[in-house]
Amino acid sequence: MTQRPLILISNDDGFSAPGIAFLIDVLRPLADLVVCAPDTGRSGMSAAITVTVPLRMRLVSEEPGLTIYKTNGTPVDCVKLALNHLFKDRKPDAVFSGINHGTNASVAIHYSGTLGAVIEACINDIPAVGLSLDDHDWQANFEPSRPWIRLLAEQVLAKGLPRGCCLNVNIPCTPDLKGLRLCRQARGRWVEEFDERKHPRGDHYFWLTGNFCNDEPEAADTDMRAMKEGFVAVVPSNIDMTDYALMIKMQDWGLERP
Amino acid sequence: MTQRPLILISNDDGFSAPGIAFLIDVLRPLADLVVCAPDTGRSGMSAAITVTVPLRMRLVSEEPGLTIYKTNGTPVDCVKLALNHLFKDRKPDAVFSGINHGTNASVAIHYSGTLGAVIEACINDIPAVGLSLDDHDWQANFEPSRPWIRLLAEQVLAKGLPRGCCLNVNIPCTPDLKGLRLCRQARGRWVEEFDERKHPRGDHYFWLTGNFCNDEPEAADTDMRAMKEGFVAVVPSNIDMTDYALMIKMQDWGLERP
Repeated sequence: MTQRPLILISNDDGFSAPGIAFLIDVLRPLADLVVCAPDTGRSGMSAAITVTVPLRMRLVSEEPGLTIYKTNGTPVDCVKLALNHLFKDRKPDAVFSGINHGTNASVAIHYSGTLGAVIEACINDIPAVGLSLDDHDWQANFEPSRPWIRLLAEQVLAKGLPRGCCLNVNIPCTPDLKGLRLCRQARGRWVEEFDERKHPRGDHYFWLTGNFCNDEPEAADTDMRAMKEGFVAVVPSNIDMTDYALMIKMQDWGLERP
Repeated sequence: MTQRPLILISNDDGFSAPGIAFLIDVLRPLADLVVCAPDTGRSGMSAAITVTVPLRMRLVSEEPGLTIYKTNGTPVDCVKLALNHLFKDRKPDAVFSGINHGTNASVAIHYSGTLGAVIEACINDIPAVGLSLDDHDWQANFEPSRPWIRLLAEQVLAKGLPRGCCLNVNIPCTPDLKGLRLCRQARGRWVEEFDERKHPRGDHYFWLTGNFCNDEPEAADTDMRAMKEGFVAVVPSNIDMTDYALMIKMQDWGLERP
């Protein structure tokens, strides 16, 4: 008899978020699950690690096929702690992170704690998938994505992912998902990023806010476009950020002598 | 008369770190400088952003050609605040981040606050360079890197960088630097990452620590190898993490129907 697959789940909204509960529910028929997630929301943490505060990990619940831990760390800390202390005998077959409440398409891959956990798993040669729904609401409807996440998870468990590769999956907020679409990361940025306010004491402070601006709305092959057209956007991503073309181009820069 | 170039400087060790003071000293002959950096060390912050705490920015000092601000935010927050509030009429010609006390070679680009600032600048189409010295000591000797950083900065100011591209520069800790070498990000990871301790009250906690392990020590074209051989490692990097090869390969996965 072959062993059931083993999946590590994390997120950045915290272990008690509806998105991670839904992900657990979708993946439970496919694999034994270990959850290790932040004890509270850690959105926007990117691949941050905690070096100045002692980390703690607590068992939340344990039942056949599902064990849940929480930590006071970032998503990356959660994956590091889990891989170092919860999987002594057997590495997980895959890491799934999410489902995030809010999109992580385009350049949000760089800011996202959800994707930070994915990148950490990928650095450790474990197939990893980050999932986000384009809806910040705590009551968001994740249900339409169920068959597509299941299909993708089955394929990742069956085929694995090449070393250095991971998947950034973004789900549009619609009850009528048209399917999965392989696409690339759109170019974009946030604009009007700050709300400046005056404190009762008189000094000024800022809240980070802002709107995402897609720099290439006409492009047909981006994650932003796929979502706009009702598809689940799957961006195969690589943790090697080397720009090989620029490496060759810069050989003409005369950098040999100061 | 042409305008003097304008450079924004940030880091993750804080505005008062020796590394940023050295960088200011190297770049001052080349450009007018605006510094916007964290008020204290924010190492390991990656591209994290601050959404739950109000951000504050304070003028530290002002003299001809050099203005220094500090913020209570992450390196990415610093770049965002600076671009939104300090450069109303004119965008900076380049962003330099560092010099970090400690290397950010290989996959450290994903964890590093120094590089988080660089990625943020790159998202905003500004040529950006992250600099790190392989020495955590506050008394580290940055001086040998001076002519090479100056050469690189002159070239970046003259030629710019293609959209989406930035440079991750790592300096080995040696008085005899052999030059600059264009190279790629080495594959690697941290191992033995936690120091587990028992609290006086009895519970257990972890300190994040660990050693970097180069997964390809034999490869001749990596940043790790360049540094080992006494070269300043320059990795042209791209914020588009899409893996275009995997995108094609996954078309055979049968993802059309659940």
